Amino acid sequence: MVPENVIREIEASVGQEQVLTAAEDRWTYAFDATEEAHLPDLVVFPGSAAEVAAIVRLANEHRFPVVPRGAGTGRSGGSVPIQGGVVLVLTRLNRILEINTQDLVAVVEPGVILGRFKAAVEEQGLYYPPDPASAEFCTMGGNVAECAGGAVAVQYGVTRDYVLGLEVVLPTGEIIEAGTRTMKGVVGYDLTRLFLGSEGTLGVITRITLRLVAKPPARQTLAAAFGTLTAAAGAVSRILASGLAPTALEFMDQVTLKCVREMLPFKVPPQAAALLLIAVDGHPRDVEERAGAMARFCEEQGAKPVLRAKTAAEAEELWQARKVVSPALKKIKPQKVSEDVVVPLGAIPDLIAALEELSQRRGLVIPCYGHAGDGNIHVNVLYDRGRPGEVEAVEPTVEEIFVLVRGLKGTLSGEHGIGLTKAPYLGMELAPAAIALQKRLKQAFDPNNIMNPGKIFPPGEKAKDPRV
Amino acid sequence: MVPENVIREIEASVGQEQVLTAAEDRWTYAFDATEEAHLPDLVVFPGSAAEVAAIVRLANEHRFPVVPRGAGTGRSGGSVPIQGGVVLVLTRLNRILEINTQDLVAVVEPGVILGRFKAAVEEQGLYYPPDPASAEFCTMGGNVAECAGGAVAVQYGVTRDYVLGLEVVLPTGEIIEAGTRTMKGVVGYDLTRLFLGSEGTLGVITRITLRLVAKPPARQTLAAAFGTLTAAAGAVSRILASGLAPTALEFMDQVTLKCVREMLPFKVPPQAAALLLIAVDGHPRDVEERAGAMARFCEEQGAKPVLRAKTAAEAEELWQARKVVSPALKKIKPQKVSEDVVVPLGAIPDLIAALEELSQRRGLVIPCYGHAGDGNIHVNVLYDRGRPGEVEAVEPTVEEIFVLVRGLKGTLSGEHGIGLTKAPYLGMELAPAAIALQKRLKQAFDPNNIMNPGKIFPPGEKAKDPRV
Repeated sequence: MVPENVIREIEASVGQEQVLTAAEDRWTYAFDATEEAHLPDLVVFPGSAAEVAAIVRLANEHRFPVVPRGAGTGRSGGSVPIQGGVVLVLTRLNRILEINTQDLVAVVEPGVILGRFKAAVEEQGLYYPPDPASAEFCTMGGNVAECAGGAVAVQYGVTRDYVLGLEVVLPTGEIIEAGTRTMKGVVGYDLTRLFLGSEGTLGVITRITLRLVAKPPARQTLAAAFGTLTAAAGAVSRILASGLAPTALEFMDQVTLKCVREMLPFKVPPQAAALLLIAVDGHPRDVEERAGAMARFCEEQGAKPVLRAKTAAEAEELWQARKVVSPALKKIKPQKVSEDVVVPLGAIPDLIAALEELSQRRGLVIPCYGHAGDGNIHVNVLYDRGRPGEVEAVEPTVEEIFVLVRGLKGTLSGEHGIGLTKAPYLGMELAPAAIALQKRLKQAFDPNNIMNPGKIFPPGEKAKDPRV
Repeated sequence: MVPENVIREIEASVGQEQVLTAAEDRWTYAFDATEEAHLPDLVVFPGSAAEVAAIVRLANEHRFPVVPRGAGTGRSGGSVPIQGGVVLVLTRLNRILEINTQDLVAVVEPGVILGRFKAAVEEQGLYYPPDPASAEFCTMGGNVAECAGGAVAVQYGVTRDYVLGLEVVLPTGEIIEAGTRTMKGVVGYDLTRLFLGSEGTLGVITRITLRLVAKPPARQTLAAAFGTLTAAAGAVSRILASGLAPTALEFMDQVTLKCVREMLPFKVPPQAAALLLIAVDGHPRDVEERAGAMARFCEEQGAKPVLRAKTAAEAEELWQARKVVSPALKKIKPQKVSEDVVVPLGAIPDLIAALEELSQRRGLVIPCYGHAGDGNIHVNVLYDRGRPGEVEAVEPTVEEIFVLVRGLKGTLSGEHGIGLTKAPYLGMELAPAAIALQKRLKQAFDPNNIMNPGKIFPPGEKAKDPRV
């Protein structure tokens, strides 16, 4: 618990109106986009890095957890305050400080909404590629903390590939600058990339310097419906091996397709077992040629129809349908566990086939969709708490999915992070010596384990419990 | 010193023929590409990760330094065994274990020569972009340890952007796997990118998993000679702001040009004050158009002549001339200090102008060349030990260059690392709290400070001296 006198100190530092103490208010910040929830002792909306630092110093002194949070759209429980303490909501730090068209650099605060930032950059004739499905809601700080990706990562990479520098409040209360404003930099250890995907456990990000790129002169979007999953997976393999370099190569299976069918700007045949969504960026003629070649590959794999979006609005509708897939799956079953596995590109067909078999054997609906172009497949185990046997089947199924993915030399998470929900499985990917090293590293940053404790590392193996 | 009985143990483990003890042999491994040198106590050529681990464990037990080394082409003294101990030469670990055209992944050992690897990848119809000037000699392990770049980093990024996973012998002797074989991955802290550019201070890299990309269908190379530096800098700014996305945009000043003039496949007018070398990758027609637009920009800035390489051989000659710039500068003066600063893209003209002024004021020849396209300029302070006053002027000049670069929001090193030669200047870029954190991080990896001690951190501030 955060002591009363500390609450008063925090109120004095950030202003009483920026602190929530009533339970009904605090519950609002107990959740993220998972099924996990835990009531924080206090919710604070700091207005500057200095205010963040003041709270972190108090946390260090009084040993209570500090959990940074943006919009709470995370998919692994990263911002759920599982051990209570203070939830630090960073949405007031929401300024775009600079978009510099000479340096091709932008500087933002962590509470800026990604979609707003992307639009502001495009107004300046530039492009910031990362584009997770939650783009219109999620914050830049969360994107950095979880290393968000999205559909166009196939060509452009993920958030990691755009962050040049950070201002961070360390768990010990100092404010440091990491990284550079330059395109290259190798001065000292790469703290910038270490913070990328560190899920709020190594410090609080208070400013982000990002690299921007030129806006692609043209983009085309294709959609191709396939009669079998195998045919779709074959088209993916062929496109990836062709050197045609798709910008995005998204995949939806039959169940997923059913959930978003009416949102699509064209009719998908009811017997379609999979849909591929393809984007191609580049020079207009180049795009025309590459899109044409990819369409042919799809047709040769038996796709019907293969459609090109004729207008930007039609393309936008297609991508919107893709972006609502995750919530739309709840039409099928009330609960779901979303996995975010990645396999090597060549193993995509094997993964898809094995998941189909698993779904049948377990008697669970396991829709798959996602970023086929980089092997990052979102595997969803749907269930109904009310149905006998379903809840119990979920955990062993998830574990089986992970065994399968590791067997294919894949990884447990591509862009959602480990957070809380995947922490029990960390040992399926990292050896004891690697986990021990990561804990020493956490300790070097956060000797009192106050920053977002209980995340990443398997429960029962916490480096140090701040509440004890 | 490494005790005699430990030398015997090492010989027993790796084979006597893989250990050098004679001083004349050991001197061969005292150097890199800087002016620095220090005699190691022992030189060992391990044949496997297990042998590396055995040596590291002995080093931990007996507290002697271990300095990993590839081909010794480094430019910041990273592999110079400044505190003696064992130099671990990794050139026997020189197998390309896999080039997988389905997964777009390669797996190599650290002793593989970069040029050999690039050629092997291209034989498979794929492309591995990083291309430092030492490509024909340097090793993949060194590329990772220093995060090597090169000319095409403007479009393709640096080594960091291609390393997916690593096998590393930790300073405590355990062998761990970091990262993935997949295109994305966010499981635990990003140890992979932390090892990138860590200059052999956090462990010994024994295997590298790399991402490959499609071979660009076409490349054009242009050369443009300018009458003034300002005109060349203006062309650079205009090209970068245009969105034409050059693949490489290299720059040589008058002194540099003089040193490589006879290697160029065409005549550069004697009055030329700067040469730009431009590469454009992509679809053939796209390349044609973009190269044409860039050529026009150069002409409008007064460049004359602007030449396009007509054949692959002619382009190759141009790039070869660029690659020998560094050694060729020794034609002017026997000694040089090479800096590797980076400034934000918009600050390139200011940097070039300020360096010209500095050179005149200090009376030193300070040739500049390098990667104008990403602001990474190689600034060389030439001197002659035999000339009174010159040696003394070097250090304050270097310091003034760093002050200048920091004033332009730049960084001290883009791709050469801090190593030994830049360590005294670390505090010009990193604040005390950031340096303290980096030292705690080093300690978390290497509690006995055996891995490449005396590097990165300013002298006299060593975390812990293993020899004491």
